[in-house]
Amino acid sequence: MIVVMDLRATEEQVEAVYKRLEGMGFKTHLIKGVERLVIGAIGDRKQIQNSGIEIMPGVEKLVPVMKPYKLVSREVKVEDTVIKVRDFNIGAEEIIVIAGPCAVESREQLLETAELVAAAGARAIRGGTYKPRTSPYSFQGMEEDGLQLLAEAGIKTGLATITEVIDEKSLGLAVNYVDIIQVGARNMQNFQLLKAAGRVSKPVVLKRGLSATMEEWLMAAEYIMSEGNYNVILCERGIRTFENYTRNTLDLSAVPLIKQLSHLPVIVDPSHATGEWRLVPPLSKGAVAAGADGLLIEVHPDPVTALCDGPQSLTPDNFKILMQELRAVAQAVGRDI
Amino acid sequence: MIVVMDLRATEEQVEAVYKRLEGMGFKTHLIKGVERLVIGAIGDRKQIQNSGIEIMPGVEKLVPVMKPYKLVSREVKVEDTVIKVRDFNIGAEEIIVIAGPCAVESREQLLETAELVAAAGARAIRGGTYKPRTSPYSFQGMEEDGLQLLAEAGIKTGLATITEVIDEKSLGLAVNYVDIIQVGARNMQNFQLLKAAGRVSKPVVLKRGLSATMEEWLMAAEYIMSEGNYNVILCERGIRTFENYTRNTLDLSAVPLIKQLSHLPVIVDPSHATGEWRLVPPLSKGAVAAGADGLLIEVHPDPVTALCDGPQSLTPDNFKILMQELRAVAQAVGRDI
Amino acid sequence: MIVVMDLRATEEQVEAVYKRLEGMGFKTHLIKGVERLVIGAIGDRKQIQNSGIEIMPGVEKLVPVMKPYKLVSREVKVEDTVIKVRDFNIGAEEIIVIAGPCAVESREQLLETAELVAAAGARAIRGGTYKPRTSPYSFQGMEEDGLQLLAEAGIKTGLATITEVIDEKSLGLAVNYVDIIQVGARNMQNFQLLKAAGRVSKPVVLKRGLSATMEEWLMAAEYIMSEGNYNVILCERGIRTFENYTRNTLDLSAVPLIKQLSHLPVIVDPSHATGEWRLVPPLSKGAVAAGADGLLIEVHPDPVTALCDGPQSLTPDNFKILMQELRAVAQAVGRDI
Amino acid sequence: MIVVMDLRATEEQVEAVYKRLEGMGFKTHLIKGVERLVIGAIGDRKQIQNSGIEIMPGVEKLVPVMKPYKLVSREVKVEDTVIKVRDFNIGAEEIIVIAGPCAVESREQLLETAELVAAAGARAIRGGTYKPRTSPYSFQGMEEDGLQLLAEAGIKTGLATITEVIDEKSLGLAVNYVDIIQVGARNMQNFQLLKAAGRVSKPVVLKRGLSATMEEWLMAAEYIMSEGNYNVILCERGIRTFENYTRNTLDLSAVPLIKQLSHLPVIVDPSHATGEWRLVPPLSKGAVAAGADGLLIEVHPDPVTALCDGPQSLTPDNFKILMQELRAVAQAVGRDI
Repeated sequence: MIVVMDLRATEEQVEAVYKRLEGMGFKTHLIKGVERLVIGAIGDRKQIQNSGIEIMPGVEKLVPVMKPYKLVSREVKVEDTVIKVRDFNIGAEEIIVIAGPCAVESREQLLETAELVAAAGARAIRGGTYKPRTSPYSFQGMEEDGLQLLAEAGIKTGLATITEVIDEKSLGLAVNYVDIIQVGARNMQNFQLLKAAGRVSKPVVLKRGLSATMEEWLMAAEYIMSEGNYNVILCERGIRTFENYTRNTLDLSAVPLIKQLSHLPVIVDPSHATGEWRLVPPLSKGAVAAGADGLLIEVHPDPVTALCDGPQSLTPDNFKILMQELRAVAQAVGRDI
Repeated sequence: MIVVMDLRATEEQVEAVYKRLEGMGFKTHLIKGVERLVIGAIGDRKQIQNSGIEIMPGVEKLVPVMKPYKLVSREVKVEDTVIKVRDFNIGAEEIIVIAGPCAVESREQLLETAELVAAAGARAIRGGTYKPRTSPYSFQGMEEDGLQLLAEAGIKTGLATITEVIDEKSLGLAVNYVDIIQVGARNMQNFQLLKAAGRVSKPVVLKRGLSATMEEWLMAAEYIMSEGNYNVILCERGIRTFENYTRNTLDLSAVPLIKQLSHLPVIVDPSHATGEWRLVPPLSKGAVAAGADGLLIEVHPDPVTALCDGPQSLTPDNFKILMQELRAVAQAVGRDI
Repeated sequence: MIVVMDLRATEEQVEAVYKRLEGMGFKTHLIKGVERLVIGAIGDRKQIQNSGIEIMPGVEKLVPVMKPYKLVSREVKVEDTVIKVRDFNIGAEEIIVIAGPCAVESREQLLETAELVAAAGARAIRGGTYKPRTSPYSFQGMEEDGLQLLAEAGIKTGLATITEVIDEKSLGLAVNYVDIIQVGARNMQNFQLLKAAGRVSKPVVLKRGLSATMEEWLMAAEYIMSEGNYNVILCERGIRTFENYTRNTLDLSAVPLIKQLSHLPVIVDPSHATGEWRLVPPLSKGAVAAGADGLLIEVHPDPVTALCDGPQSLTPDNFKILMQELRAVAQAVGRDI
Repeated sequence: MIVVMDLRATEEQVEAVYKRLEGMGFKTHLIKGVERLVIGAIGDRKQIQNSGIEIMPGVEKLVPVMKPYKLVSREVKVEDTVIKVRDFNIGAEEIIVIAGPCAVESREQLLETAELVAAAGARAIRGGTYKPRTSPYSFQGMEEDGLQLLAEAGIKTGLATITEVIDEKSLGLAVNYVDIIQVGARNMQNFQLLKAAGRVSKPVVLKRGLSATMEEWLMAAEYIMSEGNYNVILCERGIRTFENYTRNTLDLSAVPLIKQLSHLPVIVDPSHATGEWRLVPPLSKGAVAAGADGLLIEVHPDPVTALCDGPQSLTPDNFKILMQELRAVAQAVGRDI
C-alpha cells in the first residue's frame, strides 16, 4: 500500500502516520518526491484498509498495490479452469452453446425447444423458473414445476440443464433438478446468495451486474470460491450505458480482459445484452471470434407468444442457421463448436 | 399503448397487427401521419407487454402511455404520506436526522454515539449489523449481537433505531429489535427481499440502487407496497458515475423529482454518496434546501479507528456544528429540524 | 407526434391543447384510453418541438414518432453506401484495414511504419498531426510538417492517408495532403467543424463521442451530410463506462445496429477503445465477425518510445500476425481482407 | 510516480525498468512488498508518461502521485479567486444570479426579460446567439445581431452580459459586445477554443462536459489559464446519467469538491441540468446551501412560445418568487444575494 501525503503535510503529520504504520507492524519506506512525500507500507492489505490512515491529517490518499481478489486470479492459478458437465467441458477447445427460452412456460414449449436446439448442436437447455422481474405485476415463473420440466427435458435430449436461482430456497430446490446453477445480474452482489452458491456442488454461471466493474464481478466470483465451489463460469450479458436503442450494451472486451485477469471460463449472453433478436447473430459471431468459451442464446418456438422477452428470442430456424455460421467462425479462431 | 409502424410496413402487416390487437380485446385507433402509421391501442398495459406485438413484421416500436407503477404514484394518492415512528413523523414539517456509525462495533462505541447524536438533535440511531461488503474477506457485521445493542441504545436514549437487512433471515430477526428496516442499494432489486419487507409491520427505508433510474426505484417500492406495507421511505444515497474523486455522485434532483412522482417521503444519505466527511456538511445543507424530509448521516466517536467507512464519518463535534447549521437552512425553507 | 395528457387534465386543458395544435395546422386525433387521454398530432416534427405544447397545463409529455435524422437513414436510402478511395472501396465486400502510429513523430518513424503495414496488407496509413490532448502540457502534434510526411508516405507506399482535424484551419490544410479526413470523438458535437467537414470533397471518418448515443452520432453525421458531403464513415472507438481496467469500452453492438439504422459504412478502432495492445487482436477479430467494414489499428515500430499511446500500439510483427488471423475470420463471414 | 511490477516479474525485468528510469534521470526507490515489487520514481511526471515504462515486460501499472493540473489547483494558490465584473464580484460573499432566455430571439423579448430579471435582483443577463444544436435543422441563433441586442440590454439595465461562443470566429465577435464569455458543455474539450479563450481579456464561464470528470474539467480550465487568462468560472450544469425523467443529472457535490481542489469560483445551472422548470427552484436553493458562488437560470417572458428550451424556463413571476426564497437560504449559510 502506498500512502501519498498532502503537498502541505507537516513533519509532525508525516511522523504520526509513520509511527502508526510501524505500530501496526508495517514496514515503511519514505520516498521524498519532487513535490510530495510518499510512504510505502509493506504488510497485510486488509489490515491497512481499516487502519484509519486515510483520514489522518496530512494524508491525501492511499493507493493499493495488491489486487483484492485471490482465488479467481490468474496470478494464483496460471492454467485455465476447465469445468466438466455431463459429457462436455466448459473452458476447453469446444465452444459450448446453451439455448432455450427466457422462461419455462409449459411442458410442450420446453420439450419442443429442447429437441430443436439439441438437433442444432446446443449442449445445454436454459429456461427461467424463478424470474426476477422489474414489476411485481409481471409473470414470476413456474417455480418447482418448471424445474421438473427442465429435468425431464435433460433426460429426453441428453442436454445439460441450467436455471437461475434468486434466493437460498430456490437454490436448494434447483440443485436437485439441474446441472448448472445461474446467479443473475441483479443478484451479482447478493452476497448471501453468493455464499450459499459457494456451498453447493454444481457449477455456477455468474452473470455480470448491470453496472459492475470487472473487479466487482471477480470479487463476486471470489465470494463463491471462498466458500469452496471452484466451478464458476463468468457470463458477460451487457452493461447499462446511455444507449436506448438496445436494452444493454454488450461488452465483448470483457472476454479477453477476464481471460487475462482470471483462469475462469467466460461465456456471453447476446440475447439479454441487446434485447433484439436481429442483433444476436452478429454479436454471437463477434463473441466467438473474441475468444468466448460459450454462448447463452434465447430460443423460443414462437417468440410472438412468449411470456417473457419474445423480442430477443431467435426462432429455432434462425438458431439453426446461426449454429452453422458459428461453426465457421469457431474454426477460423482454432476452436470447435 | 401506441404502436408505431415501420415506414415501409405493408397494408397486410398493418392489418395483421390491427387484427391481433382487436382479437386480444383492445380498442384501436389508426392515425395516418405524414410519414408513418400509428395505432393507438386501448386496454391493459400488462397484457400488451406479453402480446408479441413488438416483434410482428412491420412494427417499429411500442410506446407505453401509462406509468408502470400504481401504489407509489402521486396520481393515485395526492396527499403526502406521513409515517409515524415513536414520537415523531417522517414526511411532515420536521426534517428527521438519523445518525450513527456505519457498523455497530461494540456496546461502548454504539451507546456513546447514541448519546452524543441524541444530544445534538438526531431522532434515530443507525448502525449496520449485517454488512454487505464487496470483499468476502472484510468485516461482515456483529449480526444479532449488534441488533441487541441497537435495541439497548434505543431504550437508553429514546432514539428510534434503524438497521439494514440483507435477506429474509436477518429481516426476521431485525423486526424484533429495531423501529425501522433498511433495504440497501445493492438489494434494491432483490425482489424476494422486497416482498418479504412488504409483509412486515415496520417502516422500510429503501435505498436507491447504484445505477437505478427513478422508475426502477419506484417499482422497487411498488414491490414492497404490493405486499401490504405502505410505510416506505425512499433514500437517495448517490449513484455511480464516471467520477473517481467521490465514491458515488449524490443526485439531489431526485428529491424534488420523487416528490412530483410519488407521495412517499424522501431522505438523503450524503455520507455514502460522497465517501468523504468534508463533503457531508455542504451536501446535507443542500439536501435540506432542496426539500428532503430527512438525512442519514454517519457519525463515529473516533473515525480513525472505525472498522468500516471511517473516511466518511463525522466526529460528534462536527455533527453538532452541522445540526446547528442545518437548523438555519431548514427555517429558511419553512421547516424545522 | 403523440401528446400524452396528465391523468388529472381538465376538459379545458385538453381543449386548449387541441386548439393550439389545430391553430398550428396540425391534424389531430383524440384517443381516450383506460386512464388518460392521448392526442395524435399529424404534421411537421420540427414545428411541434418549438410549439410550447410540452409545457401547457395538463400535458404530461410528448412522444416523437418520426426519427430526427433523414439523410443518414436506411429508411431514406436502402442500399449500402460504398465510398471509393484510391483503388479500394469502403463499405463493400473487402474489409479495409487502416494502420499506423497515434502521432506522426518523424519522417523515419512514419515511412518505416507505412512500409511495414502496407506489406502486411493495410490499405491506408493513419497518423495524428494535430492532437487533442487532455493536458495543455502534452505533445500537441507536428501540424503541417506531419501532413507533408503523410502525403509522402502515401506516395511511397500507395497507401491512402488519413489524419484527424481539430478545427477549420487544420481541416483547410489537411484536405490538401490526405485522402480521408477524421473528426475525433471529442469533436463529435463540434457542430462548426462538422459543417465545415460537410463542405469538403474528401470522405470523413466520424468517430463516436465518448458518451454519445447512436442517435446523437447519427445526427452528427447528418450535420456533415446536410452540407453536401455524403461520404461519411462511422467509427466506433469505445464509450466511457465505469470500467477502469480499460481506457474505454468497445461497443461492438454499434456495428450491426448502425447497419440497421443507416446505409453508411462502419469501422472499428479497437486500439483507442481498449488502450491496451493485448486486447486489440481478439477485439479486431470480434469486430470483423460482427460485420465491421474496416478497422483502425495503431501500429508503432517501437511502442516503448512512442510519444503518444504506446501502450495501445501493436508492433509491426504483431500486426502482421493479426492480419493473417483476420483473413481467416473475414472468410468465415463471407468477406475478404 | 509509482511503478508496480507484476507478481511474476523476473529479476532481469526489474533491472531493465530500474536502468531505464535511472537513464532518464529519475531517482528510484525499490520497495519489496509481501507479494510484489514496487519502484518509486522521483522526477518529472510529464517525462515518465511518455517513457514507455508502462509497456516494458514485467510492469503491471504506473500510479501517478502528482496531480496533472497546476494553475487551477488550490495547492498552488490557497486563496479564493475573486473575479470583478462591472460593479460586482464573482467568488466573494455575494451569490451572483445570471438570468435570461436560452436564446436571444428578438429585441423586445430580450429587453423585456432583462428589465424583469434586473428588477428581481439578477446581476447579469444571459442569452444564446450562437446555439450548438443536436440537429442541423434546429434554430441556430441570431449571431451578431443577437450580440448587439445583448450589449443594448446591458446598457439599458446596467446588467452584465454573457453569451456562449462556439468557435474562434464567434469568440472574436463576442468579446466586443459582452462582459463574460461562456464555453459550453459540448466544447469543454474543444482545446483550440479553450486556448483562444485563454488569450482574451474577458472572464470565461467554463461549463462542465456531459460526462466529464472533475479532473478533465479542471484540465480544461488549465488550458485556458495556461494561455494567460486567469479569470475562469466553473459552471456545473448536469451530467449524463441513466435517468430519463430529467435531461441531465445535476451534480451538486461538484460545488464543495471543486472548492476543495481549486481556488476558482463555481456556479450552477439548474435549468439545463434538469430541463424542467419545476425542478429549478428546489435545486437553486440546494445549490446555494451547498456553497455555490452563483446561479445561471433560464427566464423567458413567455416560455410557451420560446424558440429553444421553453420547458426549462421560469416565467418572470416565478423567477421573482425564487429570488426571494434564495435570499433566505443565502443568509442561512452566511452569504448575500
